[in-house]
Amino acid sequence: MDSSPLLQKLINDLRCLPGVGPKSAQRMAFHLLEHDKQGAIGLAESLIKAMENIGHCSRCRTFSEHNICTICQSPKRDNQLLCIVESPADVRALEQATDYKGLYFVLMGHLSPIDGVGPEQIGIPQLRQKLQDEPIREVILATNPTVEGETTAHYISELVRSFNIVPTRIAHGVPVGGELEYVDINTLSHAFQGRREV
Amino acid sequence: MDSSPLLQKLINDLRCLPGVGPKSAQRMAFHLLEHDKQGAIGLAESLIKAMENIGHCSRCRTFSEHNICTICQSPKRDNQLLCIVESPADVRALEQATDYKGLYFVLMGHLSPIDGVGPEQIGIPQLRQKLQDEPIREVILATNPTVEGETTAHYISELVRSFNIVPTRIAHGVPVGGELEYVDINTLSHAFQGRREV
Repeated sequence: MDSSPLLQKLINDLRCLPGVGPKSAQRMAFHLLEHDKQGAIGLAESLIKAMENIGHCSRCRTFSEHNICTICQSPKRDNQLLCIVESPADVRALEQATDYKGLYFVLMGHLSPIDGVGPEQIGIPQLRQKLQDEPIREVILATNPTVEGETTAHYISELVRSFNIVPTRIAHGVPVGGELEYVDINTLSHAFQGRREV
Repeated sequence: MDSSPLLQKLINDLRCLPGVGPKSAQRMAFHLLEHDKQGAIGLAESLIKAMENIGHCSRCRTFSEHNICTICQSPKRDNQLLCIVESPADVRALEQATDYKGLYFVLMGHLSPIDGVGPEQIGIPQLRQKLQDEPIREVILATNPTVEGETTAHYISELVRSFNIVPTRIAHGVPVGGELEYVDINTLSHAFQGRREV
């Protein structure tokens, strides 16, 4: 028997969040009811506003509540540089970590024929148009260093080269602060082959 | 630079959930936007309804959207039995695990003078009134097996005895399915002292 159907519904609905199981959902519901009703109301309002207003930027495909996102709109960004990433999270990570001042193109995924994700699904036709119309001189491939990410980077680099534009790939190597002993052999092999004069 | 202030606000607001840091909040926001807008809207509606309507049952203090919760309202429950627990989560756990048919009293915490939680804060005056007015014959102390839970159970057992009602405590012992070797010594000592004839 349940003391509150409304509470049960809240616990069920919280499980739409990734990584939240029945126990965490219950803990969240109890926490909000007991300690943070204001926060919960604020979250509800944010959720509704975000879901109703956020779509994809028509230029770079990242999440944005405007037709063109703030990065694509900015006159301070260098439109000769285009950085290609898999997800909006990667845009955020690069913006925080680097002083990159060019533009982005967000694939919203990676090539994965087995899951039915081909060039169309990751916006390659739109990218092709961009490479043709815009004064791009360098395309930086910043897809993930996974098998799918590498395949996608390779595919796009061929496309980029066909427009006589230089494709570059972010460096693979030993993570800063790591110890050689604990780095996996693939990474170490990449780091060794990619050595540079100091 | 951020591509979407609305998205940033959603990520910040998701952090009101316990155990959700900046990375999980971002993952949740992206997941909802990309894969589950309907779920997110449903969650927002549940949050608002729950926060606006759920309060405490006036009899047992558990969470309920009614003045008296469904368990306290039920004519099928035995009003001579009263089980005392620390939180509404414990009510749910006991309802799932046992076929207990009595009523509950939820302390919404435990005695902890150092945090300013005294008898008033855990509803002892209300419990005293209950013991006086209602035909209770047994009070089952199901507070947590922690120092604070034990102290609270001890305090309440004295109160219960003063009304000539029998206080009982849930058994402490070896968890079912565990191995003796890995059980902590406190639990093992309790289990040994609390042995019963088979």
